[in-house]
Amino acid sequence: MTDSLTALIEKELAEQTADFSREYIELTDAMRYSLLSGGKRIRPRILMMFYRLCGGKNEAALPFAAGLEMIHTYSLIHDDLPCMDDDDMRRGRPSCHKAYGETTALLAGDALLTLGFAAAAKTTGLPAERVTRAIAVLAERAGMAGMVGGQVMDLRFERETPSLAELHNMVEKKTACLIMAAAEIGCILAGAPEEQVAAAREYGFKTGLAFQIIDDILDCAADEAVLGKPTGSDAKNGKTTFVTLLGIEGARREAKDLTTRALAALDRFEGDHTELTELTRHLLVREY
Amino acid sequence: MTDSLTALIEKELAEQTADFSREYIELTDAMRYSLLSGGKRIRPRILMMFYRLCGGKNEAALPFAAGLEMIHTYSLIHDDLPCMDDDDMRRGRPSCHKAYGETTALLAGDALLTLGFAAAAKTTGLPAERVTRAIAVLAERAGMAGMVGGQVMDLRFERETPSLAELHNMVEKKTACLIMAAAEIGCILAGAPEEQVAAAREYGFKTGLAFQIIDDILDCAADEAVLGKPTGSDAKNGKTTFVTLLGIEGARREAKDLTTRALAALDRFEGDHTELTELTRHLLVREY
Repeated sequence: MTDSLTALIEKELAEQTADFSREYIELTDAMRYSLLSGGKRIRPRILMMFYRLCGGKNEAALPFAAGLEMIHTYSLIHDDLPCMDDDDMRRGRPSCHKAYGETTALLAGDALLTLGFAAAAKTTGLPAERVTRAIAVLAERAGMAGMVGGQVMDLRFERETPSLAELHNMVEKKTACLIMAAAEIGCILAGAPEEQVAAAREYGFKTGLAFQIIDDILDCAADEAVLGKPTGSDAKNGKTTFVTLLGIEGARREAKDLTTRALAALDRFEGDHTELTELTRHLLVREY
Repeated sequence: MTDSLTALIEKELAEQTADFSREYIELTDAMRYSLLSGGKRIRPRILMMFYRLCGGKNEAALPFAAGLEMIHTYSLIHDDLPCMDDDDMRRGRPSCHKAYGETTALLAGDALLTLGFAAAAKTTGLPAERVTRAIAVLAERAGMAGMVGGQVMDLRFERETPSLAELHNMVEKKTACLIMAAAEIGCILAGAPEEQVAAAREYGFKTGLAFQIIDDILDCAADEAVLGKPTGSDAKNGKTTFVTLLGIEGARREAKDLTTRALAALDRFEGDHTELTELTRHLLVREY
């Protein structure tokens, strides 16, 4: 689904990584390799859609949206490393450390995480109070109480079998937190009232969980060539997922139910949320 | 050298890491293990000293100073990892990955880097414009054009022998950049005029280079028990340092000369800079 917003985000990402020094070309090549590899750009799109929904003007939030995508990309690079999930493929190509080596991949992740905050802090044309608050939200959702903590729990669940509640908690942190951040930050940067920030958080939470459930279903059922990475890896690793706990049909029902509730959260916004509704529905029926 | 400022920084670091959830205790234990291990706290002290020198009131900059130390600590954890410098010891104890395993150490570094920006963004009682600018400076100095880029060059120099100019450039990025950030950010948060920010940057640059030269000298000459890590590792790794290029006496002269120039930069401030002068002189004659 390439649209004008996705094109705008791609352009911003390309521009923010265009003037890299050639002094450490192996690092910057690795950063670009992973960042500009045609992801779905879900998080920056959600950020921008909420920003516009709450009356945000121009493209002032775009650098921040690009920073969010950099932080998402760093997490993929580090998750793929040998001492983590040890994945050789990502988005249909060799993962960063397979292409550039472990050392460079680790540093490319560190540099993208840092550059993400640089991009966020350089947001101009909006009140600085909104920007500092949005950075605090981003750091909280991406850090130990969010995405990194979720990764720790995920790795633990390769050794211990989680309950459904524990799995929910892990996925909330590992996957949903950055989608929640996207939605909340869009509202914060637009200066939306607190009840809308809360509705956006709710939307991100439900959408993030649904997103992960669909990922689990695709890992069992999808065509490897379409998905761009090996399927069946969860089963192979003996990993507990929503599919192993609920079955494919149960997981599908759960994802559908979460999507319905995510869409209900959108109804708390007065503006036109057609774009967000379409994106959310599309995430449910996606094939990769 | 424990003084009241160092005690204040230790207290802030302890407080900011006190309420960690027990859900991912292995992660937070590893973060605390590395962060609260009695480092010299040079960077946050320099930040606070410049903040006060430029008329900064109360302790409003303290959370930001703690964030800077978290980012320094993350860099030590990642630098010690097997795929990087592969160091078993740090500050007289097993390095983070030796104590907690590679996976947890990698994630503890990621979480500390992220928490550093969270701490910075939560700075209150100062104009938000100063905080966003300071965060941008921090991210720039810590990222690919600064510390991470310097690490890439450092690893490259294990294979290629650098010239003195190339070594200077690498050390500016790898070591001096975060000390420059400390000095600049102290001024920025205090609302100092641009010429003082520039003088602080100059101070940090000279001090950072002198700091690394002393480190190189200590690696050759110091007592292992005092230093808290194995000495002679540079020679063992065939690493080019200021000592191999200039000799011990030449390196000592260079460090002294840089320190003199760092102190000269301090004279461009009108206030009382006794504390900073003492710290800077102490760095030159330190034994660890």
